[in-house]
Amino acid sequence: MVAAAAPARIQFLQTPTSQAWVEQAIAHLDTVLLDHSHCERKAAGVAMNLMCRYPSSEKLVRALTAIAQEELSHFELVNQWLERRQVPLQPLPAPPYGAGLSKQVRRVEPDRMLDSLLVAALIEARSHERLGLLAAHCPEPELAQFFHSLMASEARHYGAYWVLATTYFDRATVNARLTELSAIESELLATLHPEPRIHS
Amino acid sequence: MVAAAAPARIQFLQTPTSQAWVEQAIAHLDTVLLDHSHCERKAAGVAMNLMCRYPSSEKLVRALTAIAQEELSHFELVNQWLERRQVPLQPLPAPPYGAGLSKQVRRVEPDRMLDSLLVAALIEARSHERLGLLAAHCPEPELAQFFHSLMASEARHYGAYWVLATTYFDRATVNARLTELSAIESELLATLHPEPRIHS
Ligand SMILES: [Fe+2]
Ligand SMILES: [Fe+2]
Ligand SMILES: [Fe+2]
Ligand SMILES: [Fe+2]
Repeated sequence: MVAAAAPARIQFLQTPTSQAWVEQAIAHLDTVLLDHSHCERKAAGVAMNLMCRYPSSEKLVRALTAIAQEELSHFELVNQWLERRQVPLQPLPAPPYGAGLSKQVRRVEPDRMLDSLLVAALIEARSHERLGLLAAHCPEPELAQFFHSLMASEARHYGAYWVLATTYFDRATVNARLTELSAIESELLATLHPEPRIHS
Repeated sequence: MVAAAAPARIQFLQTPTSQAWVEQAIAHLDTVLLDHSHCERKAAGVAMNLMCRYPSSEKLVRALTAIAQEELSHFELVNQWLERRQVPLQPLPAPPYGAGLSKQVRRVEPDRMLDSLLVAALIEARSHERLGLLAAHCPEPELAQFFHSLMASEARHYGAYWVLATTYFDRATVNARLTELSAIESELLATLHPEPRIHS
């Protein structure tokens, strides 16, 4: 049983992030920032892919256009921090988290749409929680402030994905599937990944 | 020999757009607007894909982040026009132009990077030219004004792709390949596609 860094306040997440993750992340801030840059670019890509896949779903297209724009502006801001800290942009092997969640997305519509929206919601919710922890524990006040500023957007994003799910599916279906997926999401993070990452 | 709508003023383009394309487009403004929406989303996708493929190329990542953001905001603006005109968002079969150009991209690096940048530059240059023609010939002043407002960004985009090409490759190599690709680009548009499209 690992110690939680803070009580689970985030709706959606079954298990709060451990203190061990916080210590790992704070000890490797440059790596975590570089990984965060990749996360923001991938988040923009997820939104773009979904709006390509469902081009006739007007509400989805509208909401995801806004999310993709915000993720790209986060990507730009994180990259400015990397530049300031003289961390060169470079690839970083991804932790198993993203692939583990993608594997849960059922292949046949409309399940595929529901699962894609809920997986995106869970990743945003976890990012929101962890950015909050970074903001609370980062020893550099200006960088802590930056993490804090991103936190609020990620909360809006998980809300937006959840609203989209309930736009296209009835609420009982959404909640039942969310419970299943969020159990898996917590399970994927139960063992700390050895490499410091946003989703290690 | 088809009549040109205007003299070829756009650097990069070997053959100017025909008067026949202008007539086809103006007669099917709603379809062209819907296609334009897809073009803007695809343009954002092209920029995103390239920055995923070359994550360590700082200048490329920085320039393409800005382009992806602008294309998404164009996408949003075009979709607002579609909504105002009560044209529902829906898929539209793509003309052969994009696939025809993609086929020219060589598979092995660094040729692949050069070709990808130059194909993107050519598509942007052609979009710039055609948005100018739509602005000049559209009978609805407000919509004409909208096309005009997008035109300037597309000119900056083709410039940005060309600058990136010359950042990573010497100028003689860039110019020689650009001449080859632009001949193919003009050839792909030599026969008017029967469906009205931005790149028909
Ligand atoms: Fe973000
Ligand atoms: Fe987000
Ligand atoms: Fe555009
Ligand atoms: Fe463009």
